[in-house]
Amino acid sequence: MAPSVAVENLNPKVLKCEYAVRGEIVIHAQVSWRLQQQLQTQPGSLPFDEILYCNIGNPQSLGQQPVTFFREVLALCDHPSLLEKEETKSLFSADAISRAKRILSTIPGRATGAYSHSQGIKGLRDAIAAGIALRDGFPANADDIFVTDGASPGVHMMMQLLLRDEKDGILCPIPQYPLYSASIALHGGTLIPYYLDEKTGWGLEISELKKQLEDARSKGIDVRALVVINPGNPTGQVLAEDNQCDIVRFCKNEGLVLLADEVYQENIYVDDKKFNSFKKIARSIGYGEDDLPLVSFQSVSKGYYGECGKRGGYMEITGFSASVREQVYKIASVNLCSNITGQILASLIMNPPKEGDESYAAYKAEKDGILQSLARRAKALEDAFNNLEGISCNKAEGAMYLFPQIHLPQKAIEAAKAAKKAPDAFYALRLLEATGIVVVPGSGFGQVPGTWHIRCTILPQEDKIPAVITRFKAFHEAFMAEYRD
Amino acid sequence: MAPSVAVENLNPKVLKCEYAVRGEIVIHAQVSWRLQQQLQTQPGSLPFDEILYCNIGNPQSLGQQPVTFFREVLALCDHPSLLEKEETKSLFSADAISRAKRILSTIPGRATGAYSHSQGIKGLRDAIAAGIALRDGFPANADDIFVTDGASPGVHMMMQLLLRDEKDGILCPIPQYPLYSASIALHGGTLIPYYLDEKTGWGLEISELKKQLEDARSKGIDVRALVVINPGNPTGQVLAEDNQCDIVRFCKNEGLVLLADEVYQENIYVDDKKFNSFKKIARSIGYGEDDLPLVSFQSVSKGYYGECGKRGGYMEITGFSASVREQVYKIASVNLCSNITGQILASLIMNPPKEGDESYAAYKAEKDGILQSLARRAKALEDAFNNLEGISCNKAEGAMYLFPQIHLPQKAIEAAKAAKKAPDAFYALRLLEATGIVVVPGSGFGQVPGTWHIRCTILPQEDKIPAVITRFKAFHEAFMAEYRD
Repeated sequence: MAPSVAVENLNPKVLKCEYAVRGEIVIHAQVSWRLQQQLQTQPGSLPFDEILYCNIGNPQSLGQQPVTFFREVLALCDHPSLLEKEETKSLFSADAISRAKRILSTIPGRATGAYSHSQGIKGLRDAIAAGIALRDGFPANADDIFVTDGASPGVHMMMQLLLRDEKDGILCPIPQYPLYSASIALHGGTLIPYYLDEKTGWGLEISELKKQLEDARSKGIDVRALVVINPGNPTGQVLAEDNQCDIVRFCKNEGLVLLADEVYQENIYVDDKKFNSFKKIARSIGYGEDDLPLVSFQSVSKGYYGECGKRGGYMEITGFSASVREQVYKIASVNLCSNITGQILASLIMNPPKEGDESYAAYKAEKDGILQSLARRAKALEDAFNNLEGISCNKAEGAMYLFPQIHLPQKAIEAAKAAKKAPDAFYALRLLEATGIVVVPGSGFGQVPGTWHIRCTILPQEDKIPAVITRFKAFHEAFMAEYRD
Repeated sequence: MAPSVAVENLNPKVLKCEYAVRGEIVIHAQVSWRLQQQLQTQPGSLPFDEILYCNIGNPQSLGQQPVTFFREVLALCDHPSLLEKEETKSLFSADAISRAKRILSTIPGRATGAYSHSQGIKGLRDAIAAGIALRDGFPANADDIFVTDGASPGVHMMMQLLLRDEKDGILCPIPQYPLYSASIALHGGTLIPYYLDEKTGWGLEISELKKQLEDARSKGIDVRALVVINPGNPTGQVLAEDNQCDIVRFCKNEGLVLLADEVYQENIYVDDKKFNSFKKIARSIGYGEDDLPLVSFQSVSKGYYGECGKRGGYMEITGFSASVREQVYKIASVNLCSNITGQILASLIMNPPKEGDESYAAYKAEKDGILQSLARRAKALEDAFNNLEGISCNKAEGAMYLFPQIHLPQKAIEAAKAAKKAPDAFYALRLLEATGIVVVPGSGFGQVPGTWHIRCTILPQEDKIPAVITRFKAFHEAFMAEYRD
């Protein structure tokens, strides 16, 4: 009869889109699922006793506990009648109670179950803007905030807005978080790669940006925007301030929108680097609204809070004309609004307890404990990688990942070819089967042709890191012994 | 200098997209905002003392209280350490506590802050499938469930999947909920309208479907899917079972995907109609998986729960091949997962308290109270509209809306033209300015050319309905007096 739905008649942009972080999970998950089952049904039959997930930036899935204050406030906002009960005072901290009351008072009708303004509840956007202003030392405006279900929907919105067809390009770092390649493919544009320099600690060179921009323009591509991920994913570097100044000037001079992925702004592990938002940098060098269209993405999923499942975040949009912003608002409004729990959480991470608040000491202990532990884990894994034959790993300055280069022997590369796999995917699969450690092959993020990497999160709980290192070392040595040229 | 961002160089699909429900708010909100301010700053200066919002299906924004049991469970899942405290037993019902424990036990690591499987947490999908099976009397499978941030993202996913270019068409009812026209525009396809028959209570005639399908095909359009909204939005009708059987057969015979918007499945206000899911209908007439690709959308935003702000929902996908479903999964995975609070809530609305549970009596009283009140409000508004000169309103069988036809005098139509407004938008704006009542003009939903409607929700709290009616009546009579031909 008449045509039905088949892969052949689906949207080719969907077919073209690859999504490495989750895409690899489809393959690796099948293997790890099988291994997980085998661990349960035939204990002792594998050379390891648990699967160690180092593949997704998903802290709470690996046992990280949520920040108590944030969850207290969420629970009270979810069930406001608690606020009228005496017993509540013994179950919740006083500042969580007062914060929940304050938040509810800014929500029309105290209705956490109502659609909000499509940009997010005004009172929460005020709080987010206040948090940004405090962070940057420059004013921020609630009207510039679009609260989103995590950073990803914000990125999609911007791609949807900017990309007309394949002649529109977006400059993206390579390696990159594959949300960008996936979103550009889904919206039919062209990804213009610029390579981060592994030798200089994943440095972002303006000369490379210029070269790629000119090359793209010579091919008739209208380059619309530059994506910068700072701190880097999957690379973990933190940009230096003068480098950021150059990037901002480059965008202004070239008429590019700067899409600043700043979701790891709290995740910095070295003393000699600090996070600077691109907006702060732009304002510091005297650039105002009119000089630069700039979008900063933030998320409740990362930082020390790691609230991935809550799907909260925002984008701060500056330097767009009123008529362009109206179009952003239209896209936001088609999805009505982001979830209110995530909206509340976004306001909380930008306004955590302050000195003097009842929860402050406990909050600070939780926060510092998580960040200090992440720093130790990052260092331990970085050192372990660098101690292995043929592996070199840049410093983990920030974010939640290491992206070591594996200098694979020719013999291993040929074995991968025979198995019809990318060499790094071949390596990662062998690693999984031998050790239960799940990582993502570098080919999912992009890399200089002929180089091979893996992305390994620093998220397994600290007491598991020695096991990760021991197993990884044993596997790698055996792998090299098998394939050494 | 280099090009920057301007409306002229944005994605034309975004520019083309109109979103009536929210789009109208942009205009009406400006007016209602101004009026709201004036009410505060100059009390008594307007002929009314509050704005009455009848424009969005957003019950809790108008004072509807959330269902206690659902919120208890959400609060406990947000802050699971409550479950270990003795005081909790006096603050929460026993079945909310046990339900929260059960839900947490199905979440890997009890981590409500972790990304889940991109289709949603397996245990929650099991619960949703069980709820569907109980509702329909036919089996449902967790693997067919994609939990989403409300119904809208599910609709977008399907449009993104099916639409390749403007030669792909989707059959949509007119009038329709403008999410469909917006989503089709954003994804670059063509909306093929089929008209609901106002004279037969917004009847869905197969002959009309056939006519529009053939007409579209004769123009070279590849019609991919049929959207049916049941109960109807903005029209409020509930389809009869034999009509549904015919629709299912039509889709099978014509090779169309049936996109069934079933978000108002709990909202039925007349005794002689009941909700039947299209899946139940298909299975009842002996159609299996292979006969019909069918997607059912459900949401936590509607029903008696009205939890719009929680952004929860699901789509149940049957009749797609494994390879097509893989592509749906890929789109879902690009956004990682839907928010866990919404996921939990979706499992709750499909599995509310049952007889024998501690909360059952209170739950049932809340549910019945809301639905019975909605039925009374619907009837009162319907009767009021039908008592006015030149207004005819079909029965409010279900959903949350009435869509009365306003037979505008020629003089009013000319006045609208002079004011550069659609006649129904002109009417609605005059209504707002005179009474503070906000409704959405029918032109945002589509209507038979030359007819004019407004969409009015039945959601103002019951004690406000008399005021809505009195003010509406006074306005309409004055309007007619002014413009009567």
